[in-house]
Amino acid sequence: MLIYGAMPDFRCLKEKGRIFLDHNATTPLAQCVMDKLLEWAKVWGNPSSIHQTGRAPKALLREARNAVGDFIGSHPLEVAFTSGGSESNNWALKGGYWTQKAKDPRRQEVIVSAVEHPSVMKAAKFLEDQGAKIIKVPVSREGVMDLDFYESALNEKTALVSIMYANNETGHIFPIPSMVKKAHEVGALFHCDGVQALGKVTVNVQSWGVDMASFSAHKCYSLKGCGVLYIRKGLVVESLIHGGGQERRRRAGTENTLGIASFGEVAKNYKDQVSSFYEKVLALRKRLEEGLKEFVDGVEIIGENQKRVPNTVGVILPSGVYGESVLMNLDIEGFSVSTGSACSSGSSEPSATLTAMGFSRQEAERSLRISLGWGSTEEDIQEFIIALAKIIRRLKSL
Amino acid sequence: MLIYGAMPDFRCLKEKGRIFLDHNATTPLAQCVMDKLLEWAKVWGNPSSIHQTGRAPKALLREARNAVGDFIGSHPLEVAFTSGGSESNNWALKGGYWTQKAKDPRRQEVIVSAVEHPSVMKAAKFLEDQGAKIIKVPVSREGVMDLDFYESALNEKTALVSIMYANNETGHIFPIPSMVKKAHEVGALFHCDGVQALGKVTVNVQSWGVDMASFSAHKCYSLKGCGVLYIRKGLVVESLIHGGGQERRRRAGTENTLGIASFGEVAKNYKDQVSSFYEKVLALRKRLEEGLKEFVDGVEIIGENQKRVPNTVGVILPSGVYGESVLMNLDIEGFSVSTGSACSSGSSEPSATLTAMGFSRQEAERSLRISLGWGSTEEDIQEFIIALAKIIRRLKSL
Repeated sequence: MLIYGAMPDFRCLKEKGRIFLDHNATTPLAQCVMDKLLEWAKVWGNPSSIHQTGRAPKALLREARNAVGDFIGSHPLEVAFTSGGSESNNWALKGGYWTQKAKDPRRQEVIVSAVEHPSVMKAAKFLEDQGAKIIKVPVSREGVMDLDFYESALNEKTALVSIMYANNETGHIFPIPSMVKKAHEVGALFHCDGVQALGKVTVNVQSWGVDMASFSAHKCYSLKGCGVLYIRKGLVVESLIHGGGQERRRRAGTENTLGIASFGEVAKNYKDQVSSFYEKVLALRKRLEEGLKEFVDGVEIIGENQKRVPNTVGVILPSGVYGESVLMNLDIEGFSVSTGSACSSGSSEPSATLTAMGFSRQEAERSLRISLGWGSTEEDIQEFIIALAKIIRRLKSL
Repeated sequence: MLIYGAMPDFRCLKEKGRIFLDHNATTPLAQCVMDKLLEWAKVWGNPSSIHQTGRAPKALLREARNAVGDFIGSHPLEVAFTSGGSESNNWALKGGYWTQKAKDPRRQEVIVSAVEHPSVMKAAKFLEDQGAKIIKVPVSREGVMDLDFYESALNEKTALVSIMYANNETGHIFPIPSMVKKAHEVGALFHCDGVQALGKVTVNVQSWGVDMASFSAHKCYSLKGCGVLYIRKGLVVESLIHGGGQERRRRAGTENTLGIASFGEVAKNYKDQVSSFYEKVLALRKRLEEGLKEFVDGVEIIGENQKRVPNTVGVILPSGVYGESVLMNLDIEGFSVSTGSACSSGSSEPSATLTAMGFSRQEAERSLRISLGWGSTEEDIQEFIIALAKIIRRLKSL
């Protein structure tokens, strides 16, 4: 039972009777992926085999690498396929640090923002246990990064900087190109977690100027278990997974051909439509934000006036309601949204990102993340606002 | 166009007009996986999401974890899903070493065999660069591990032992349970690369007694991009991929639900048939070996009389022919076989495994690996022997 979204040129899977507004956690599969899944699965050979059975999967990889390279604005050979965004982030942090330290043992400092994804934060924590010094750049309650702090933190001991393009919980965009320039002035490598950028804004790693960048297929209407680490030409980074000669000897392991083919297919079909999707999704988000302010008294849109990706709204709900209760009530009524990141769900701790931004524990516990997608519609937004207003009224009256 | 193999209870994809005898590189997809692929793909939610959209993928994971746990003889919660065998091996080596060294800084020695897979060998090389001492246990030309060497290498500085259950190029089985006992006597962790065991022999990690063991889905008729690291209950191993709380906080990253579901499906459907498949595949291999000896003068079956998995024949061809030329001639005539491991294909170096076993470079260059599978047939073997004998006669007459 498939129902299609409103973007005229985009078709994806939808759950019947449900409105999905959690696209920063994962995205529905594009119909073009479903259409070719069985065809790709029949290409079951090992792409590293030199006989005939290896040729079709090798061609599948090559085609996908070209398309994904185009999608992120890189040469295909700068694309290393991984198992996902978390692996890419871990590889960039650890591999980048090890590489820099091997060249110059004094380079032991790693700079991240205070609001990075757990896969960056915990990789940094691991490096700290291995002797690195981790410096966290503060981000304000409004979602603005402290660039003075950043510039004064950079020095000849900086091995690596890792800053996300857009935050997964609030959607705030950070000024990557100018930050990259500053990092390069002191000889540091710059990695950008671009997972929440792809499909939302036009991505071009070359104009970003970064040395490495991470992306995830399943955050962009493709299969799970596939990601990319962009590694700029000429940069040799220590591997995270050593072994066979796959991915130009950078990442060992037989390739997830199905996941990679799906990513390539979405890249090929939608690369040129990201900017039109941007406008449409942004228009929906503005409707959503207007509705929230009109129908939910006391709601705060986090860093409303700062630069954000078009699809994400982080809100602090009015006092007297918990984000998790609201999430569960919305769930019962057929809406999928999130509090904080899906990766830390199950944890009873409030969002580390929001507390790092200066929100109190109580405020963070009232947070809700609504993230739209290419398949979102006008009706989704209208129904959501009505349901949310009703639920909050009910919860406050208890 | 699907043709089915001869094992009465097993159906898998086959390439039309081709005989695939390279099952140690990868395996054809089981038909039961093809049958459910679209159904699984429709379950596109993030298993970590706490709303409805996350429930179906979470259930898919749980079911697969139970089935795979059963398949390898472990509790489901001892199963950590990874992106494949190479990641599992890297995690076991690096995580195991880091964990042991953190507990006792004197534990800096890692013991591997001289014939491990590149993902173990190169992970060990990485640890050597980080300060570890790597000790390689010799394996004879007949495929026998030097257990005296092994026992004298073990000491209170041994952090970790990593020995494969069965060799990917020759099929030789090493005496894991007794080796584990010796390692535990000195307080070392024991990891077993079980990638080439699963589906060939009945696997039971508990009777092996190991602390960790690696497996790969695509070597067992499932999708690529999925593997397992078995981690014995009670053992806490440093992660390779840090971040979100997936896999009981052991391995971060959104799960490859499709790959995991496929592995679970094969595990569930064929777990009880491995021993009958063993007999059938072994009978085919014996036919193959008899044929080789009868029709190919001067052929040597590597370690013929040693304990081997039922599907693998490593041979040294008679002098005057190159393995690679034979492979290419066989390829043209519709047969897929291998020289050495697929992971190192494209390299002009002869098999590191065979040279470590004492074969000369010339002998190693005459090697060929023929590996059968659940879908192999009597006719496959007959046609192969005829083709190989003809090709060798032709090449020798040049």
